[in-house]
Amino acid sequence: MQFKPSNQSFITEVENSFAKQALMKLIGAQLTRVEPGLIEIGLPFRPDLTQQNGYLHAGIVTTIADSACGYAAYTLMPAGSEVLSVEFKVNLLRPAKGSGFVAVAEVLKPGRTLTVVRSDVFTIDDGGTRELVATMLGTMMCLRR
Amino acid sequence: MQFKPSNQSFITEVENSFAKQALMKLIGAQLTRVEPGLIEIGLPFRPDLTQQNGYLHAGIVTTIADSACGYAAYTLMPAGSEVLSVEFKVNLLRPAKGSGFVAVAEVLKPGRTLTVVRSDVFTIDDGGTRELVATMLGTMMCLRR
Amino acid sequence: MQFKPSNQSFITEVENSFAKQALMKLIGAQLTRVEPGLIEIGLPFRPDLTQQNGYLHAGIVTTIADSACGYAAYTLMPAGSEVLSVEFKVNLLRPAKGSGFVAVAEVLKPGRTLTVVRSDVFTIDDGGTRELVATMLGTMMCLRR
Amino acid sequence: MQFKPSNQSFITEVENSFAKQALMKLIGAQLTRVEPGLIEIGLPFRPDLTQQNGYLHAGIVTTIADSACGYAAYTLMPAGSEVLSVEFKVNLLRPAKGSGFVAVAEVLKPGRTLTVVRSDVFTIDDGGTRELVATMLGTMMCLRR
Repeated sequence: MQFKPSNQSFITEVENSFAKQALMKLIGAQLTRVEPGLIEIGLPFRPDLTQQNGYLHAGIVTTIADSACGYAAYTLMPAGSEVLSVEFKVNLLRPAKGSGFVAVAEVLKPGRTLTVVRSDVFTIDDGGTRELVATMLGTMMCLRR
Repeated sequence: MQFKPSNQSFITEVENSFAKQALMKLIGAQLTRVEPGLIEIGLPFRPDLTQQNGYLHAGIVTTIADSACGYAAYTLMPAGSEVLSVEFKVNLLRPAKGSGFVAVAEVLKPGRTLTVVRSDVFTIDDGGTRELVATMLGTMMCLRR
Repeated sequence: MQFKPSNQSFITEVENSFAKQALMKLIGAQLTRVEPGLIEIGLPFRPDLTQQNGYLHAGIVTTIADSACGYAAYTLMPAGSEVLSVEFKVNLLRPAKGSGFVAVAEVLKPGRTLTVVRSDVFTIDDGGTRELVATMLGTMMCLRR
Repeated sequence: MQFKPSNQSFITEVENSFAKQALMKLIGAQLTRVEPGLIEIGLPFRPDLTQQNGYLHAGIVTTIADSACGYAAYTLMPAGSEVLSVEFKVNLLRPAKGSGFVAVAEVLKPGRTLTVVRSDVFTIDDGGTRELVATMLGTMMCLRR
């Protein structure tokens, strides 16, 4: 879908806000794509992010999916807004094993107060092939300062 | 609800599996209660676990809620099983601010293959008062080795 | 939890709105309890409400759970508001077989704009025993006219 | 995505099972497309299916989305299986007003036991234009007889 952002500085605002998410630094996540209604966040695999079988923990899969959803919604919000997650649901489709991961979030329905966003998380193997490991459907809220 | 575990070593098995979740170490989460169908995981606040406003990131709220749900289900599974998260949904009720957090997960309906679990995440302030900040409803799956 | 309704006519407003839900009449659902933050809706079993195995269709389980959530939220909204469902998630725990059903919804967290509600759906057998068949976790929105 | 059904009679089995869902008859829903991993169910608007504002009740939106998800999963299950809904989450994006509705369900990830399915529900206006009103993300389970 094609969206027109009302905030002409949305790229800078997303980048600034992402830089303030200390957790992104801790886990090594990076903002790799910022477009109107669309965000990608990349995450290299690290053994300290795993669950008991050595796969990426579902909580970290969710972390990058949620940040991607939040910023995808944020790209379409008016200047000076804040975004917060109201709720999300995640289906985990395959073990999250791979050398890297990417969360791709796309706005399904923007709204004045609530924006509904879908985010797919893929593993990327060493050859660059992507495979879907999880999908999130979430609701993001706009707070005006 | 009262549940009878079929695996008499469920406490040891939960503790061993939790110890293998490298992510728990990274974020500083601790297993604080293990009973049939019930798990508590505690997490002290740390500034490197936050989102852009300085609150605990929803992904970390989810991380402790998901691990708690998984292990609550696991307490009721037969010896030698593996547990994995099928899906979960999280509603974020308040900003996750506080000096510490606890995820309390309780099995709603155990099953041979699927177990449905609810987990509430509370903030704990310096005086020890708990306030609900998020609730998860999730489905956990039993894999027999 | 104890909630104080701001709208002193909340019982009448809920009853009037429920009476306008034509679907409730079609399926034979009845409003059986209206308290601040709490709603019960009863539904006798009928063979024309079933899925392929003769159990109550998950869509009808959801229908009474959703109406119960909406009105539970509505009891706490200001006079002259409208309520609408933003989203919900339902876990189906057992086949919905029984001579009757009841959806019990309770507000978890009321809010100016969004209210989070949980609804449990029980079967009732001929002796009056209740068994949990489904649980909903949903978000309801307040619209001011 | 392209799926290969293992059950060569999947079309007949879906049609037979759908015909047994008494609720589909009550609300006037019809099976309009059956392909491997894909189902469409159509529903003309009727005033007796509405909520308090005269829109299609979220429970009925869910009913057709859930049946579509279940049968989409069922097309890929082995002969002689039963399908049941484990859980679903629905986001309601716009008021469900229109002269007709269609639920389009597509399998995201088939599995031996669990199949994850997405279903979009559209309104269709008198000119035939479709608009997305709700989206479901759900988990369906295969039971072998």
